[in-house]
Amino acid sequence: MKRLRERCAQIAAHPHFMNTIIGFIIINAVLVGLETYPFFAENYSGWLDIANQALLWIFTVEIIIRLLGSRSLGAFFKDPWSLFDFVIVASGHFLVGSHFVTVLRILRVLRVLRAISIIPSLKLMVNALLKTIPSMGTVLLLLGIFFYIYAVIGTMLYQSIAPEYFGSLHASLLTLFQVVTLESWASAVMRPILVEDPTSWWYFVTFIMIGAFVIINLLVGVIVNNVEEAHREDTPSPTDLKLAEMQKEMQEIKRLLEKDST
Amino acid sequence: MKRLRERCAQIAAHPHFMNTIIGFIIINAVLVGLETYPFFAENYSGWLDIANQALLWIFTVEIIIRLLGSRSLGAFFKDPWSLFDFVIVASGHFLVGSHFVTVLRILRVLRVLRAISIIPSLKLMVNALLKTIPSMGTVLLLLGIFFYIYAVIGTMLYQSIAPEYFGSLHASLLTLFQVVTLESWASAVMRPILVEDPTSWWYFVTFIMIGAFVIINLLVGVIVNNVEEAHREDTPSPTDLKLAEMQKEMQEIKRLLEKDST
Amino acid sequence: MKRLRERCAQIAAHPHFMNTIIGFIIINAVLVGLETYPFFAENYSGWLDIANQALLWIFTVEIIIRLLGSRSLGAFFKDPWSLFDFVIVASGHFLVGSHFVTVLRILRVLRVLRAISIIPSLKLMVNALLKTIPSMGTVLLLLGIFFYIYAVIGTMLYQSIAPEYFGSLHASLLTLFQVVTLESWASAVMRPILVEDPTSWWYFVTFIMIGAFVIINLLVGVIVNNVEEAHREDTPSPTDLKLAEMQKEMQEIKRLLEKDST
Amino acid sequence: MKRLRERCAQIAAHPHFMNTIIGFIIINAVLVGLETYPFFAENYSGWLDIANQALLWIFTVEIIIRLLGSRSLGAFFKDPWSLFDFVIVASGHFLVGSHFVTVLRILRVLRVLRAISIIPSLKLMVNALLKTIPSMGTVLLLLGIFFYIYAVIGTMLYQSIAPEYFGSLHASLLTLFQVVTLESWASAVMRPILVEDPTSWWYFVTFIMIGAFVIINLLVGVIVNNVEEAHREDTPSPTDLKLAEMQKEMQEIKRLLEKDST
Repeated sequence: MKRLRERCAQIAAHPHFMNTIIGFIIINAVLVGLETYPFFAENYSGWLDIANQALLWIFTVEIIIRLLGSRSLGAFFKDPWSLFDFVIVASGHFLVGSHFVTVLRILRVLRVLRAISIIPSLKLMVNALLKTIPSMGTVLLLLGIFFYIYAVIGTMLYQSIAPEYFGSLHASLLTLFQVVTLESWASAVMRPILVEDPTSWWYFVTFIMIGAFVIINLLVGVIVNNVEEAHREDTPSPTDLKLAEMQKEMQEIKRLLEKDST
Repeated sequence: MKRLRERCAQIAAHPHFMNTIIGFIIINAVLVGLETYPFFAENYSGWLDIANQALLWIFTVEIIIRLLGSRSLGAFFKDPWSLFDFVIVASGHFLVGSHFVTVLRILRVLRVLRAISIIPSLKLMVNALLKTIPSMGTVLLLLGIFFYIYAVIGTMLYQSIAPEYFGSLHASLLTLFQVVTLESWASAVMRPILVEDPTSWWYFVTFIMIGAFVIINLLVGVIVNNVEEAHREDTPSPTDLKLAEMQKEMQEIKRLLEKDST
Repeated sequence: MKRLRERCAQIAAHPHFMNTIIGFIIINAVLVGLETYPFFAENYSGWLDIANQALLWIFTVEIIIRLLGSRSLGAFFKDPWSLFDFVIVASGHFLVGSHFVTVLRILRVLRVLRAISIIPSLKLMVNALLKTIPSMGTVLLLLGIFFYIYAVIGTMLYQSIAPEYFGSLHASLLTLFQVVTLESWASAVMRPILVEDPTSWWYFVTFIMIGAFVIINLLVGVIVNNVEEAHREDTPSPTDLKLAEMQKEMQEIKRLLEKDST
Repeated sequence: MKRLRERCAQIAAHPHFMNTIIGFIIINAVLVGLETYPFFAENYSGWLDIANQALLWIFTVEIIIRLLGSRSLGAFFKDPWSLFDFVIVASGHFLVGSHFVTVLRILRVLRVLRAISIIPSLKLMVNALLKTIPSMGTVLLLLGIFFYIYAVIGTMLYQSIAPEYFGSLHASLLTLFQVVTLESWASAVMRPILVEDPTSWWYFVTFIMIGAFVIINLLVGVIVNNVEEAHREDTPSPTDLKLAEMQKEMQEIKRLLEKDST
């Protein structure tokens, strides 16, 4: 048993293993793309089915090898990326049946995401990106409150004037998201309302100005944070190296002096 | 009397008190959201009224406790956040009557903003955001002059060609705000005018270029300011710590030498 | 004569003088705004004319005082802001006549810009903004070449398909400016062309990607430049102050040692 | 032979040579612009043909001089800019014939790009821009995966609802590029789909939020990188200069002490 574990760990760590899996993920990506073309989906549906089944089993074997090769079940499932790989592949086996055709197709698409968990540099970057989310917590809460208040007021005031945009609370939230991206906020959303309610400009102008102000400050905060962190992680600067040298010399001087005075 | 003050201060400072109030603010937010759906507003209007009345009194009691618990009336009202809380809650009592239905509804929505004055991390962040406004004073004045000049010229030149966009000075200002957000500036605003007046492109192109230039410089200024401040607030760097050590050693050397020479 | 110069310089430097002029500039701004409303332009045209004439003479007197108060004519006209003030006011006298009605109105609007030359903090900021232009020289040249090449190719390829957007070289340049601001680049410009020429997407996609890439790098360069400069202008850092102290101590040690060895 | 090489190298390095070539590139740019106006293309087509032929031979002579003047053929073709110049000019000779009219016209336009390889400051900047591309490698790969997954899902879900935008995989990729630039993403793309499929908002909102998040982090990374590099390339700071002085003094002290103790 222990020899099996060692052997699996060896295989899982081998670069050829990783490259093979990346190859199969690329094949998976190409197949999933071809399937969207009606020409392939109709004429080669048999071949596509076989290929998908084969890929599913290849990925299953891969997961089993990595699972057997891991120190323990706990260690394997603690890593969110391994868990993600497992769920994506396992659900491919469980959700069989005509009910789940669309779900299965989306699962096959999501298998492309496994490239992130396989390629180390991508994994590192996505982890770094995910790590910046908690630091935005407070700003996102503030943005949430700000959006919610404007959505409620917008629904109250323009529900009857512009039902498409402010018909209900969730429609308003979607509209405000559109407005904050500055997409057609004036030509499609504000100007028709302005015709009915000439004072409605304050609603949009203040929303955009406050929203832009908060979001820009959020970005600035993220930038400053990143620069700070980059500085902190710096290898010792030339200044620090020179200081270390000087300190050593100074200690020699002190030793000389102490020898002298005795 | 003094015991009452102490007791109130104790209650107001207790974390349970804060959490309870946050809970009621969330309930208030949910109610205010439900009210926008005609289904709830019609079928449960009685319950909603009772709940709103209850919330108003709960918040009133909260403000009274915090007011009694504060060192003095002056200290309470000097803090802009306390004043904001007081105004929001007090106006709920004064503005009773059918005239103020919409105002009261908006007041109930604004009570959600109280989350900012209650949750310390939000308060800190909003204070930090507000502090960056004065440093933008000069840029905002410059932007104001720039907008005003372009609005007057735009109204003069295109008043008759595009009355919807440049019909009056305030319409022009709103249009220029739309143009500076780059929303439909060409497809909806400039191109129809260009048909009538083929030289009008200079008006829009220069406005966007100068506007973008000034705004970007404003943002850069804010970023630089933030980075600078972050550096200034830095805890002593490793370089500084090492320098302090070296200075101590040097003073020892000097002491040794002075002892020697005497 | 010399006493007159001194007296004028004294007046021109007095804060009351500046505040008065700012006041008149604000009055000028308000008048120029009121004139755009047909109601005022028609009913009060007489009063407006008188006020405009009065303001013109007030500004003339101001310029004369500042001119007399300056060390020499050369010194006055060397400062671009003084020259700007002089030209704006002088042309108000020269361009009299019904031919120049629009020009004169624009001149009156531009007098509002004089606020920049009068208020020191605004003048400082605009000077700083203008100083950043030369550092963008090369990037602007690169952007120019890039725009020109795309405009010529666009005119060649889509002249007959979309005459409104690519009918001539200057129309193409304007369209590309619209595309680089991302305004309706797809919905209005590309998609109608795409129907006729299905390969035209590469033209727009490459233009936007290269354009965004160059412009972002330009902005990054400006930001980095600004941060660098801010660092350079820094007052000596605490590290430098400590180093200076240490150097002094070290020199004392050396003196002690030299005295010792003699 | 060697004298010819030296002579050619001399000519190619002379500033007058560069200025002349820049002059001809400007003439080339103007001609290429004039050709887009039907008036010139029809009335002066003979003159334009002669001028183009002349320019082609002038540039050919220039390339030959630079080629002869270079240390070796290998050295000339190793420099990508020289290679670019050579290809642009040489293909002008090879692609003769009525089949290649459009290609030849585009070649003539691309000759304007040679300004970059001739003007040193432009060449430096473009080289610097190109150098930042590799550092974006991982982010571009991540963006690619992210776009591909969303394109496949979008094609699967909205192929029949919005054939113009999601009719095929490549149409979806183009639409997603449009959405990520925020151009009409709501008014033209999402809202019509939302009418048919009220849950489709999650597709667009998550795409924009993730896309904006990744792209912003990419930009932040580039900015931080640039700032870091600028710091690293810094000439020695005043702190470092002072440290060097101090180290020298310390070594003198040590020498004094060592002399003392002997």
